[in-house]
Amino acid sequence: MQRYLVNKNKINKSIVLIEGNDVHHIKNVMRMKIGENILVFTDNQELFLCEIIEISDTVQAKIIGNVESKNELNKNITIAQGLINRDKTEEVIRRLVELGCNNYQPVIMDKSIIKYDDKMTDKKNNNRLDRLNRIIKEASEQSQRINLMNVYNPIFFNNLIKSIDDYDLVLFCHVEFKDQNNIKEVLKANLIDNYPNINNILVIIGPESGYSKKEIDAIMNTKAIPISLGKRVLRTETAPLSIMSILAYEVENNHE
Amino acid sequence: MQRYLVNKNKINKSIVLIEGNDVHHIKNVMRMKIGENILVFTDNQELFLCEIIEISDTVQAKIIGNVESKNELNKNITIAQGLINRDKTEEVIRRLVELGCNNYQPVIMDKSIIKYDDKMTDKKNNNRLDRLNRIIKEASEQSQRINLMNVYNPIFFNNLIKSIDDYDLVLFCHVEFKDQNNIKEVLKANLIDNYPNINNILVIIGPESGYSKKEIDAIMNTKAIPISLGKRVLRTETAPLSIMSILAYEVENNHE
Repeated sequence: MQRYLVNKNKINKSIVLIEGNDVHHIKNVMRMKIGENILVFTDNQELFLCEIIEISDTVQAKIIGNVESKNELNKNITIAQGLINRDKTEEVIRRLVELGCNNYQPVIMDKSIIKYDDKMTDKKNNNRLDRLNRIIKEASEQSQRINLMNVYNPIFFNNLIKSIDDYDLVLFCHVEFKDQNNIKEVLKANLIDNYPNINNILVIIGPESGYSKKEIDAIMNTKAIPISLGKRVLRTETAPLSIMSILAYEVENNHE
Repeated sequence: MQRYLVNKNKINKSIVLIEGNDVHHIKNVMRMKIGENILVFTDNQELFLCEIIEISDTVQAKIIGNVESKNELNKNITIAQGLINRDKTEEVIRRLVELGCNNYQPVIMDKSIIKYDDKMTDKKNNNRLDRLNRIIKEASEQSQRINLMNVYNPIFFNNLIKSIDDYDLVLFCHVEFKDQNNIKEVLKANLIDNYPNINNILVIIGPESGYSKKEIDAIMNTKAIPISLGKRVLRTETAPLSIMSILAYEVENNHE
């Protein structure tokens, strides 16, 4: 069944008001009629079964039931990645939503090919985030998630390091560790065998050209655990999809 | 170190002849000089450490040692996927190479939005495969693989079904199974606990619009094991990356 995200404040008693692009989608893409059912989810992570009761320039739907969504992972996963270009960022974000990720944090790193423009106006920054949030909304509807992934403005590497203590488990992905750490053993010892205590997971991924020596030293001085995502060199936009697939696989199939 | 693929027949005694785009890459992109080292791998899956001894319209390099590559998975993995469009196919192929896949087989399925043109000339078909093989070559060099992934012309669904007995393990990915089969338990019972007997693995993935009922019935009549890749609905071009990440994770970290 088709899903649409609405702001909580667009629900008045049991009537949901749908506006904007979703109206076009309901009317012209799905060609839905009055009386047909849709799912509506809110930024509050509620999910409702609704019946369409009016189609005009907006669509009105009546809530006919609550639905429990079991599509979210029960761990909170943040991917922090060296700044990559806009096209790659958008694609990574779209796929991370499908794979169940909760937060995406771009990080300004020494060897990022993309340079962060710190003179970028707030307006430009907000436009950029708006666009990413539209992608997240679409991907959430398509993949049937009700918990919207958060995406943030880029932060400096030092601030990433400072945030590490906020997480229960921090994975530091670097191809140079391919002969040292068995990722499956790392996840068994630090996630599976300690499952109830691990709720917030941070994954650190480098930019195209990798980390600087200074950055590696800084991360290695924290509690972050170095892992490699296999023996082959993954492009920076493949790495988040690989680790997110693995984490979803381990988390979703683990019974507390 | 930079890697280049050459045909076995371009190696004469210990001298490797490099032609075509790779010459441009060595001269103008990497700006390498005589005396520098490169890695050369052949379609025979050999890997050589070489020293550049001449740079002109071609590049000549002298083999100075054999290198053992440990970057291949020790299982042979085939992804069979409902026909998707060219851009998506190219992206899926590029990432499957990085993730360690061995074979990619497009399949003509009932609900494929892309229709296979069976009147396509051999020449067109070959051009298409040539282009995909160039992508595979580039991705192999970048990801440091020496075993080139095979890509084939599309086959009919019936022929996929007939081929199923050639595999030791067949996984049938379908989102409808999300509440039935725990993929981790399926892999434990059928891959990990039977590791020495499982060498050829086939993964079946549907096209954008999913499988037809007839196709589901046909697959369910074989030894294929139904699995779901998590509770969220993955787009068809995300599904192969997810299952390949998971299989590489399980295979690479399992010690026979």
